[in-house]
Amino acid sequence: MVPRYARPEMTAIWSPAERYRIWFEIEALASEAMAELGTIPREAARVIREKGAARVKDITEADLERIDAIERETRHDVIAFLTWLGEGIGPEARFVHQGLTSSDVLDTCLSVQLTRAADLLLADMDALLAALKRRALEHRLTPTIGRSHGIHAEPTTFGLKLAGHYAEFARGRARLVAARAEVATCAISGAVGTFAHVDPRVEEHVATALGLAPEPVSTQVIPRDRHAAFFCALAVIASGIERLATEVRHLQRSEVREAEEFFHPGQKGSSAMPHKRNPVLSENLTGLARVVRGYAVPALENVALWHERDISHSSVERFIGPDATVTLDFALARLTGMIDRLTIYPEQMARNLESLGGVVHSQEVLLALTQAGMSREDSYRAVQSAAMATWTKLGHADAKDFRANLLADPTVSAVLDAATIDRALDPTQHFKAVDTVFRRVFGEG
Amino acid sequence: MVPRYARPEMTAIWSPAERYRIWFEIEALASEAMAELGTIPREAARVIREKGAARVKDITEADLERIDAIERETRHDVIAFLTWLGEGIGPEARFVHQGLTSSDVLDTCLSVQLTRAADLLLADMDALLAALKRRALEHRLTPTIGRSHGIHAEPTTFGLKLAGHYAEFARGRARLVAARAEVATCAISGAVGTFAHVDPRVEEHVATALGLAPEPVSTQVIPRDRHAAFFCALAVIASGIERLATEVRHLQRSEVREAEEFFHPGQKGSSAMPHKRNPVLSENLTGLARVVRGYAVPALENVALWHERDISHSSVERFIGPDATVTLDFALARLTGMIDRLTIYPEQMARNLESLGGVVHSQEVLLALTQAGMSREDSYRAVQSAAMATWTKLGHADAKDFRANLLADPTVSAVLDAATIDRALDPTQHFKAVDTVFRRVFGEG
Amino acid sequence: MVPRYARPEMTAIWSPAERYRIWFEIEALASEAMAELGTIPREAARVIREKGAARVKDITEADLERIDAIERETRHDVIAFLTWLGEGIGPEARFVHQGLTSSDVLDTCLSVQLTRAADLLLADMDALLAALKRRALEHRLTPTIGRSHGIHAEPTTFGLKLAGHYAEFARGRARLVAARAEVATCAISGAVGTFAHVDPRVEEHVATALGLAPEPVSTQVIPRDRHAAFFCALAVIASGIERLATEVRHLQRSEVREAEEFFHPGQKGSSAMPHKRNPVLSENLTGLARVVRGYAVPALENVALWHERDISHSSVERFIGPDATVTLDFALARLTGMIDRLTIYPEQMARNLESLGGVVHSQEVLLALTQAGMSREDSYRAVQSAAMATWTKLGHADAKDFRANLLADPTVSAVLDAATIDRALDPTQHFKAVDTVFRRVFGEG
Amino acid sequence: MVPRYARPEMTAIWSPAERYRIWFEIEALASEAMAELGTIPREAARVIREKGAARVKDITEADLERIDAIERETRHDVIAFLTWLGEGIGPEARFVHQGLTSSDVLDTCLSVQLTRAADLLLADMDALLAALKRRALEHRLTPTIGRSHGIHAEPTTFGLKLAGHYAEFARGRARLVAARAEVATCAISGAVGTFAHVDPRVEEHVATALGLAPEPVSTQVIPRDRHAAFFCALAVIASGIERLATEVRHLQRSEVREAEEFFHPGQKGSSAMPHKRNPVLSENLTGLARVVRGYAVPALENVALWHERDISHSSVERFIGPDATVTLDFALARLTGMIDRLTIYPEQMARNLESLGGVVHSQEVLLALTQAGMSREDSYRAVQSAAMATWTKLGHADAKDFRANLLADPTVSAVLDAATIDRALDPTQHFKAVDTVFRRVFGEG
Repeated sequence: MVPRYARPEMTAIWSPAERYRIWFEIEALASEAMAELGTIPREAARVIREKGAARVKDITEADLERIDAIERETRHDVIAFLTWLGEGIGPEARFVHQGLTSSDVLDTCLSVQLTRAADLLLADMDALLAALKRRALEHRLTPTIGRSHGIHAEPTTFGLKLAGHYAEFARGRARLVAARAEVATCAISGAVGTFAHVDPRVEEHVATALGLAPEPVSTQVIPRDRHAAFFCALAVIASGIERLATEVRHLQRSEVREAEEFFHPGQKGSSAMPHKRNPVLSENLTGLARVVRGYAVPALENVALWHERDISHSSVERFIGPDATVTLDFALARLTGMIDRLTIYPEQMARNLESLGGVVHSQEVLLALTQAGMSREDSYRAVQSAAMATWTKLGHADAKDFRANLLADPTVSAVLDAATIDRALDPTQHFKAVDTVFRRVFGEG
Repeated sequence: MVPRYARPEMTAIWSPAERYRIWFEIEALASEAMAELGTIPREAARVIREKGAARVKDITEADLERIDAIERETRHDVIAFLTWLGEGIGPEARFVHQGLTSSDVLDTCLSVQLTRAADLLLADMDALLAALKRRALEHRLTPTIGRSHGIHAEPTTFGLKLAGHYAEFARGRARLVAARAEVATCAISGAVGTFAHVDPRVEEHVATALGLAPEPVSTQVIPRDRHAAFFCALAVIASGIERLATEVRHLQRSEVREAEEFFHPGQKGSSAMPHKRNPVLSENLTGLARVVRGYAVPALENVALWHERDISHSSVERFIGPDATVTLDFALARLTGMIDRLTIYPEQMARNLESLGGVVHSQEVLLALTQAGMSREDSYRAVQSAAMATWTKLGHADAKDFRANLLADPTVSAVLDAATIDRALDPTQHFKAVDTVFRRVFGEG
Repeated sequence: MVPRYARPEMTAIWSPAERYRIWFEIEALASEAMAELGTIPREAARVIREKGAARVKDITEADLERIDAIERETRHDVIAFLTWLGEGIGPEARFVHQGLTSSDVLDTCLSVQLTRAADLLLADMDALLAALKRRALEHRLTPTIGRSHGIHAEPTTFGLKLAGHYAEFARGRARLVAARAEVATCAISGAVGTFAHVDPRVEEHVATALGLAPEPVSTQVIPRDRHAAFFCALAVIASGIERLATEVRHLQRSEVREAEEFFHPGQKGSSAMPHKRNPVLSENLTGLARVVRGYAVPALENVALWHERDISHSSVERFIGPDATVTLDFALARLTGMIDRLTIYPEQMARNLESLGGVVHSQEVLLALTQAGMSREDSYRAVQSAAMATWTKLGHADAKDFRANLLADPTVSAVLDAATIDRALDPTQHFKAVDTVFRRVFGEG
Repeated sequence: MVPRYARPEMTAIWSPAERYRIWFEIEALASEAMAELGTIPREAARVIREKGAARVKDITEADLERIDAIERETRHDVIAFLTWLGEGIGPEARFVHQGLTSSDVLDTCLSVQLTRAADLLLADMDALLAALKRRALEHRLTPTIGRSHGIHAEPTTFGLKLAGHYAEFARGRARLVAARAEVATCAISGAVGTFAHVDPRVEEHVATALGLAPEPVSTQVIPRDRHAAFFCALAVIASGIERLATEVRHLQRSEVREAEEFFHPGQKGSSAMPHKRNPVLSENLTGLARVVRGYAVPALENVALWHERDISHSSVERFIGPDATVTLDFALARLTGMIDRLTIYPEQMARNLESLGGVVHSQEVLLALTQAGMSREDSYRAVQSAAMATWTKLGHADAKDFRANLLADPTVSAVLDAATIDRALDPTQHFKAVDTVFRRVFGEG
């Protein structure tokens, strides 16, 4: 976790104190279920809940240090916590953790943390989707050149571009909902998942109270394919962030200048060159995407634990649990702000659209020729030839535009008159399906 | 694709000839929709279908070489194919590919290939699930030691182990169904996805005929987050294969010998050491899992294409499309066969279960002590001490088992009588929840 | 391995027949060393060499099928080969493979293949370096705008750009030399590396004959950290390919047009849009770089083999051994050809350089102001303000260039006269260190 | 960075205050070189050094907050620092950073940090190598079974096992030395690396003073292939850690018990099961290895920066710079401690070695048969048959050992007498090359 790329609400989920509070909640809930089932005295459960809640309410630095000190001796984090907790509960502490194994607490806690993190991420995505939709509707019919291979292809609209990203993040959101469900399980099944010392109804009680589902079959742990799928879902979302960030970086290039990240009063683009206004947010997002994506690799390696489990996954998750969620939360928020305030230059879009002398309409001319009976191959050659003649002379004194070059070709003018060519060169044909696509993406009209 | 790790049904999907047949089908369907809409003559569509079908029916090596030769000149694979196809269709060929862009064909073809591949993989998983269920039911109550950290923990059953893997692959199957849906879209939307030269109804027609959904908003391509999610799903399944393979490798270790891959008559384990019987299938599966998992990395990097697309994803997919699906298909089939014929040694499981002098029952004794009023810390110390005394003397002349060491401790015998200790050491308590778990995993009965 | 991205010389290294020839060579050399040491009869070694050489000289499809058939029975590839080989050698075949283990043959063979592959790759890199050097010298003083963040920064030369890539590939070459040395070892040390049944002098003999070093301590295998380092080196080189490919893709953008991949007569850029000329080679290289890079992940996972080895690495290497080397070989050759024939447009470079009204010289003005006594902060504000005034009006009727805007600012003109400003705006200052840098990179001159 | 996996000396390198001190040192050194060259007044350089040094000597939390506040306005970290620094220097501050670009400071600082980190890691590796060597010599001739595929193969010694790991880490150390050299460069070359506003001699001066080499050709940045190679080297070392950790995890398995991590007084292995003694350090190291390895992926993606650079690499390095070095430092130290105190059980090794009834000597019998004139195939069948007869009856009442089964086979006893068989079963033959290997690995004596 890098502080500059972290927001407090998400980091709070991963603080040591919060982790201990969740651990306590799991133990208290388990005790209450056991009291209900008669496994431990009702009074014990009441004392555990009451004194325990007081103990974890405001965990101080001194408390954390005390727990760490016990861990240094026992070399076991859950035992250290339970010992410290027991100091506050008194004799009834012996009824805490009855029949549970550490992983019951640790894994269920991780489920709570990951689902809470997912909830924040879902809210982030909703904000991003709203921003994208707003800007897409705003620029629904703002003409801009579509580019494949970085080369001008045919006109499109800036709204269509944004609609595509909206749809991608909407898919990402759906994947995150599924990923949240993957990790929203609770295991209170004991040492190797056999419920030998704890009733399955305890698991059901804890699960329900925490908004989780009981893990159908756990070993000592909740199986890590769930978490791998979760981190993969984050990785795919991060890749979508990179795609949009890359688009903005391209649009802000000095030669393109179709859009620009908001440049704040007082902002400085470069320590050396005062003229610089750089797409630093998008570039930053590109890097953050790499980071989040990278965490999928160890998450996948975490799946193949030995037998009923080994503990190799634990250190990995201490890194990637917080790092992936905190970083993605920050990135989504940054991206939303960036899209919200993105300065868009429709005139420059129009200028770029026209800058190649009309060759971007080559396809419609090709189709007109084939419709007029020319073979596809001959049509292609004629249109390519006129386009190249236009392209290579761009900016030269003897430049002719695509229309002129087409008309100058007798094989073309033999079958197409000027009016047909003008129809082929009409940019409005490219916008006729915008409504259809917007309806598909945003629903209602 | 490595021939020894490939099965014909899956590789057939990725053959050049099959690819061309799918391309043709897309073009023919698009032509038919255009004829219906009046964009091209009905007769043209009929000729395209008839002569085209004949042309692609039996694509020979000479055909492939002819297409390659055209590609060497045009440096464009789809144009090369269309030119070759056109040679067989005649003048009506000019109505093929009207208003389409190459990616319409390429991406829709990839969707067809990936969904077909997914269907084979789903069938593979069904076979694997069936094998796991059969063996799980067979060994529902076969006692075996559960291990955490590779250390004996508490008893479980071999059926429970397999049930856990069954549940993991059932989740993998559900993810694969979702992943299949992700990539089951069709784009026939033209150069930059604007439908400038092709009616959206053409896309709908082609999609329906191919069992795909129309891509709501494409650029020049079907967005690659879909494919990234697909390959991530395969990576998670591969990791599950590794987990089960690792289990078998552990069980077959010389010191464990609880299970063994079927050793065929005539099989030789080692060129040097005739005594060897190695878990080579499981080891091989571990490696194949690494390979399949590795393909998620470039798949994720493929998402951030430039603008309406660049072509960087294409070469990546020429590798990982076949390689990931063919290898996973092979691995699933190999795993199924391995599980089906796995030799299981219940006596050896029982022997290992008893091999530590009973210390694996330490938890129940701990709980009995706390229930009898001893603090958790004191109970832990007493039990740990008796366990260590047992453990460190294992195999020595003066060895005493856990029960004896417990009874020899006055702090223990002060609060627990021999009968209570014997109840704590009773292994059957570990099997009482098997029915519950099996019901959760396999449903009723 | 994807045929379209493969060249014959590299694929030949990885053919089954070649693999068997190398296996034979290792066995024959080992036999000869054993004969020399008196472990086996001299005559046996002679017969093995003579009859074995004849057997492997022209391995037919039928031979391959025969070996596969034996492997189907024995489920062991080396035994299958030895059996087939033995059929050609006769009774003396019992002296083949004496005291060796399969991995001795397999791993030493892999070393031979990887070092040969490395040699081809080194030759590829030499060709690439030569092409880069030639073009760098050619454009040593071709002015072009340097860009950071995709935004015009300050002038540089196209030769300097290429010199940077040259230096990167020269580093890559040095890493490849080191990586080649890593994998250039031979192990003939028997079942678990103890030389129990084979004299270390046999290993030395085989190593020397094959141009390898004896592995100082092997287990059953040559340790896989060597191979991981090798594939990482390829991954870094691939990333360098991507950097150069990305540069060309940017330079060919429609708005930039400073360089262009050679467009062949007959080439077609798009099936739909005859005007397209796309940087398809660079885009393809970007994808191939992703693929090669991806192989580092399983290569790293291959290191932690169990005990004296497991066989999980083997299937991974059957993929990545050929795939990484064949693909990188192809990519390097493609990149060399692309650089060799790259069309460079110095006029367009000059045009772009001037396109922002001179603001790219902002730093020198900033320095002049600080040298004239103004604080860094005030200088920055003045220069930034003049630059923004220039930038935002670009292409507008009331546009003023940077010089004019500077002179119009009284705080600037109070301390800098027009001549000083003109000196600050002089582009030639940016080229004065070209010689220094070229000397550092290319040495002489 | 996860505090529990971090050591203070390494984290200190990455603290904000230390980063600012290095930045200052670079600026001060550059000023001094410029003063020497007459670019700025000597007095200015003196004041910058003196007042600047005072300013950065004890950077307080308030200072850090002040710098952050400036950054919030300027959105530029280096400018924020320079502004804060300038507040302490006064008017001469305008001579700081003359002709430099931010990346000159940032990248050279990263080089300083990475080389310092590498120095700590090299010291870590020396300590690890020393521990491995000590234990290897101690157990030079401690017999233990070698295992391939997890199956008993042939005897080896525990010292040989450790020698193999020693050699691997020695290679890792050499790679780290090379990787350190890769990143030990300094760039003070200005906005796009042209030295337009700064003399190359400034770079040389700063480089020398910091123990770095001048970067031969930089763009705006030091090229990132260097850093990719660095993080790959760490990834390979991490994989070596995993290999050794995996070995210990296997040796501590309940069924194997040949070695055990030191179990501290007061340590508790499990919250539920007091009998547990788990290889938690090795398991933890396995996870940490995954984490460090994972950072190679984004490091490789960082190479292909746009043009003279974009800033996407920066956020990645803010994560992986500290995370990879701090985690690897911790892991190496933990591994060293673990090896140093590893409890080794030679008696159990001997017991396991004998546990398969002698079949681990099958190869020598095979060789004896072939030497006696039997064909390899017949010999193999006879030995395999005797071994299987031994193996499958292990622990049964009618069990016979390998020797007995061999003698009972008339085809064997026809050609080998009991004395020859006894020689073949003699374990000491496996130790005869230990001296040779130790000499290769540890040098003379």
